Amino acid sequence: MKIRLAASALALGWALAGASAAPAAAEEGMWTFDNFPLARVNQTYGTSLDQAWLDRVREASVRLQGCSASFVSPDGLILTNHHCVVSCVQELSTADRDYVANGFIVATREEERTCPGQTAEVLTDITDVTDRVLQAGAGLEGGAFAEARAAEIARIQDEACGGDRRLNCQVISFYRGGRYALYKFRRYGDVRLAFAPEFQAAFFGGDPDNFNFPRYALDAAFLRAYEDGRPVATPNHLVWNARAPREGEPTFVSGNPGSTSRLLTIAQLENLRDVQIPVAQLQRSELRGRLLQYSQSSEEAARISVDPIFGLENSFKAFYGQQQALTDTAFMAEKRRQEAELRAAVAADPALVQRIGDPWTTLEEVQGRIENLYLPYRQLEANAGGGSTLYAYARSIVRVAKERAKPADQRRAGYSDADVERLSRQLGTERPIDADIEEIYLAFWLSKTREYLTVDHPQVKALLGDESPEALAERLVEGTRLADPAFRRQALTMAPDALAEADPLLAFVLANDEAAQAVRNDWQAQVSAPTAQAAEKIAQARFAVYGENQYPDATFSLRLSYGSVRGWTYRGVEVEPFTYMGGLFDRATGSPPFNAAEDFLAARAEIDPDIVYNFTTTNDIIGGNSGSPVIDAEGQVIGAAFDGNIHSLGGAYGYDGAVNRTVVVSTAAITEALRDVYDQPRLLEELGVD
Amino acid sequence: MKIRLAASALALGWALAGASAAPAAAEEGMWTFDNFPLARVNQTYGTSLDQAWLDRVREASVRLQGCSASFVSPDGLILTNHHCVVSCVQELSTADRDYVANGFIVATREEERTCPGQTAEVLTDITDVTDRVLQAGAGLEGGAFAEARAAEIARIQDEACGGDRRLNCQVISFYRGGRYALYKFRRYGDVRLAFAPEFQAAFFGGDPDNFNFPRYALDAAFLRAYEDGRPVATPNHLVWNARAPREGEPTFVSGNPGSTSRLLTIAQLENLRDVQIPVAQLQRSELRGRLLQYSQSSEEAARISVDPIFGLENSFKAFYGQQQALTDTAFMAEKRRQEAELRAAVAADPALVQRIGDPWTTLEEVQGRIENLYLPYRQLEANAGGGSTLYAYARSIVRVAKERAKPADQRRAGYSDADVERLSRQLGTERPIDADIEEIYLAFWLSKTREYLTVDHPQVKALLGDESPEALAERLVEGTRLADPAFRRQALTMAPDALAEADPLLAFVLANDEAAQAVRNDWQAQVSAPTAQAAEKIAQARFAVYGENQYPDATFSLRLSYGSVRGWTYRGVEVEPFTYMGGLFDRATGSPPFNAAEDFLAARAEIDPDIVYNFTTTNDIIGGNSGSPVIDAEGQVIGAAFDGNIHSLGGAYGYDGAVNRTVVVSTAAITEALRDVYDQPRLLEELGVD
Repeated sequence: MKIRLAASALALGWALAGASAAPAAAEEGMWTFDNFPLARVNQTYGTSLDQAWLDRVREASVRLQGCSASFVSPDGLILTNHHCVVSCVQELSTADRDYVANGFIVATREEERTCPGQTAEVLTDITDVTDRVLQAGAGLEGGAFAEARAAEIARIQDEACGGDRRLNCQVISFYRGGRYALYKFRRYGDVRLAFAPEFQAAFFGGDPDNFNFPRYALDAAFLRAYEDGRPVATPNHLVWNARAPREGEPTFVSGNPGSTSRLLTIAQLENLRDVQIPVAQLQRSELRGRLLQYSQSSEEAARISVDPIFGLENSFKAFYGQQQALTDTAFMAEKRRQEAELRAAVAADPALVQRIGDPWTTLEEVQGRIENLYLPYRQLEANAGGGSTLYAYARSIVRVAKERAKPADQRRAGYSDADVERLSRQLGTERPIDADIEEIYLAFWLSKTREYLTVDHPQVKALLGDESPEALAERLVEGTRLADPAFRRQALTMAPDALAEADPLLAFVLANDEAAQAVRNDWQAQVSAPTAQAAEKIAQARFAVYGENQYPDATFSLRLSYGSVRGWTYRGVEVEPFTYMGGLFDRATGSPPFNAAEDFLAARAEIDPDIVYNFTTTNDIIGGNSGSPVIDAEGQVIGAAFDGNIHSLGGAYGYDGAVNRTVVVSTAAITEALRDVYDQPRLLEELGVD
Repeated sequence: MKIRLAASALALGWALAGASAAPAAAEEGMWTFDNFPLARVNQTYGTSLDQAWLDRVREASVRLQGCSASFVSPDGLILTNHHCVVSCVQELSTADRDYVANGFIVATREEERTCPGQTAEVLTDITDVTDRVLQAGAGLEGGAFAEARAAEIARIQDEACGGDRRLNCQVISFYRGGRYALYKFRRYGDVRLAFAPEFQAAFFGGDPDNFNFPRYALDAAFLRAYEDGRPVATPNHLVWNARAPREGEPTFVSGNPGSTSRLLTIAQLENLRDVQIPVAQLQRSELRGRLLQYSQSSEEAARISVDPIFGLENSFKAFYGQQQALTDTAFMAEKRRQEAELRAAVAADPALVQRIGDPWTTLEEVQGRIENLYLPYRQLEANAGGGSTLYAYARSIVRVAKERAKPADQRRAGYSDADVERLSRQLGTERPIDADIEEIYLAFWLSKTREYLTVDHPQVKALLGDESPEALAERLVEGTRLADPAFRRQALTMAPDALAEADPLLAFVLANDEAAQAVRNDWQAQVSAPTAQAAEKIAQARFAVYGENQYPDATFSLRLSYGSVRGWTYRGVEVEPFTYMGGLFDRATGSPPFNAAEDFLAARAEIDPDIVYNFTTTNDIIGGNSGSPVIDAEGQVIGAAFDGNIHSLGGAYGYDGAVNRTVVVSTAAITEALRDVYDQPRLLEELGVD
């Protein structure tokens, strides 16, 4: 089987049915739970889904940081992907005790361990707040518009949740500002690791197999939500079903797709293609090279690099796939056709023109400004610190100090006393800091900032002074006390003047913060605000022309996708939808990353080779959906989505039902691994299998 | 002064006068010596250049591998850039004796040392061979066309030069196949290093200042041509003039611009922009990260990485600048307008249509094929080995063995007995091999080949077998004997069967060579041959429509550019054309790469701060021109071109006289350094200054 990651991999047949027009094609769509096309689905699949079915699925669906998950037992047990918990597994590991390599495998609930900073959220209420949000910015432009909006959103959230730490209230934008809704979540702040397999079992095939299929990965793990020191009762969990999936059966994926850009204009897409994505990819590539080479320098370096390298390579491949779509002539031609169709429909309706004006031309003008502003904005603000955790701590502390020095009613949104209290809890959490990685991130960021803004840029001079990026990064990382949570909590109470004397990294961030915030304000006024305003108008045009039967772009909010178990055919090659556990041993060469995990090798004789390992469905998902339960028509969980195939990457801009596939690890395989590889009777019992 | 390397740096005012139309704008053009616009130049500048002036300049101009240079004394002394000899300086260095860091500074001619493999060539004759070359491929297509052409070109070269090792005969394509000429060179095969300053003097500001201005770099070095163990007599050398350049004075640059793409069609440019350049840049970035991180691992690692990192960063920045032009809307619109103009003129001339057909559509079709073929061609053939010297040796040896096994008249062009003899001399030259760097190159290449072709590609499976890229690279580099020149010479006499047993790297290359050559043949038949045929027709169209008053795209053949000493203005900021030696110490922060060289610091009190250090001219040059003499109207050398400004990088596709600038190190500064920093009275005397 050959599924090429080639420049032309996405060059074929973009059906692109209705990504920016409506209605959506069969199996396309990341639907909100309050606008799911129940009737169409039941008619298509002969299912009998109803509101109660939707409610049950919603109540069992869990949002993690950057990932999705589901309750699968009455005692708060959470199914997600291994790659969603690998940061936690790495943080719990030490040089002596490597849970990443060996798995986190414990015999009792008491041995489950808290994942630092991890939360689990369950969506409980959706309230439309469109009018309130839109009115808040009415008549304003630029920075004033953005601040007024942000302040109103903060008020809505505060009113709904108060300071209740067991809740999270979030106003989320849909349809690029066509709708705003308040999403209210039940929030669990103590989430513990219950089970993780060996990294090599979860990520067999590594980066080469990532986004590929056939696949042989046990990319699954279990967390558990706790409250007041006890497991949370979750009676509305999904029922675990360890049966094999059936080709063609309907599947539903409930989770949080992070971000799609299907509703962007051509001008916006071309800017991504020509300006923003290339720079980000070039920087990812170089950082990847640095980390890979660093990881070879010692065993400990290899250990602490696992998660940073995985995250970087995963992003790189995802954007590589996206860029293939954006440079595909046929794909962009179809996008242009759709935009022309909508604009023609608007032009034919004078009242609509009167109402929305010409937001497409506005967005073209904004792209011209982005060409000038993007690099300073990226290097000095959006990507400042280059991924360094210590830098992120320092910036939070500096900005809190500066905002707190203002009267309460003049602070920026996001710096209320409640916000600061939440931040204090986050910063006070103990987390391991890897100084080498921190230095690599900081030196790389400083070096690229100098490269892309040039050495003669005043802000580059201010950042570096007379130091080299490497020497400065070393001095800051070695000198800072911010790795100590007690110091972080203490620093969060200091005034700006005191910060500069307390710590070299705080002093560094403070000295450069005014310039960074100026760049941020510029971007907000010249890019974010006018983009939001124009996008809202395009959304209104779309509703006026195509009606309400549409799904919004992904915004890391709960969505339900429908589809079915199916393989695909590409360039005449048919790809079967299933792999089997025995196939792992055929694919294993013994060389990383194609070495089978040790416990799998040891248990080879016990493992049933005919159990479905991974499978593919037509569900429309994207990054952020990782860990989503794959649910059958009965509402039972039959797998966890952990990937898309290579063709799904262009899904950021449009769904092609012919080849876009979700990749799933089956409950059947997870069950088999718990039974015959990792010996976890306590979890099997809890899942109701034996 | 601020000269930003920003996404928008090249977004302004592409005058692009006549890049693909004619006549060329003032100061645009890389003219061949047999079509130089003498009359226009004399009229514009009030000069009195004549054929004798041209001949003198040509006879003093020297072609090095990848660089340009000139004779500047009667004893074969050659002026070029430091960055053109840094590979040699690095090869002559050891862990104990670092000529890169400390400079190669000797007191006598006897201490000058041979640069391994370096040659120096002087152009002596130009003969038009267009008819012969065009007839050789007449009526043929694809691979047969390419082979017939290559064979005829080899015959022309052989007839003109025979086996005379003091000559080099090369048939060079001009105007993308509109003309072919035989260039005959006097060739010197013993070229010795006479003087190189400290790396930090030559490359002050490092990558951040590369392609920037103002600039403070002594990017100059001296070689000397020897024959029969004695310096070559070069009575027709350029006269060294250490005076300061004058703003506005005419300047002439004689050298070998490597490659421009100004005559490509829109379809070809878009393919470069969307398919070929992005992949190459992403790979360069990651390799750069690996090498930079490796270079930090020890002092010796830092030492041996200097040249590889310089080369990589230089290429990266050059293509970054090129990509800015190709993604610039205004630039591409002007290119489209020019193409439409030419096509309209053709369409209006039925006889011309009859003669050339529609080569533009042909080239569009070829680009579609490139999308499919590029990645395998790049990874398995064009870029195979990823820069590893050992791999390159192995491939040469394997292919010679396979060709020699055929009857003489069935061998591919390039494998005559004379060719093999030349290769044997090259391979037999002693050169240091850095095993770490070789392993990084090989492992990186194998890893990217797996990534871009996917792990399921049959040729990837064949390359890797059950090994990881890292383990395979280590086994091959540790096991091969190809670092030994005696073994290389011996291997070059073996039959294919014997190679596989003689050496693991030879065995590896041999095992994969058939597949690589199949990809090469595919590319030749489907891409190279039809591209050459179509481009020739477009060249004929251009001659028919615009006449002969045109300059051809660069092809690393001797060209003369005219211009004048001038700064530029960008976004309202005026950039002066001169920097002065005293300015170095103002710019030096003390941190690499902005630390002044030690000998410069030691001599600071002696250095005249008012001497012009670097300066800019409007000459139209590109990579390959490095080291070119910058000549005044009297025919005397006043500097060596070593760079272009950031705006010159888009010059690959079009020249913008408003901002495109050549960057030069002055003879005044070189003289001052020889006198007061490096104490080289013997060279000063030879140059006629004191």
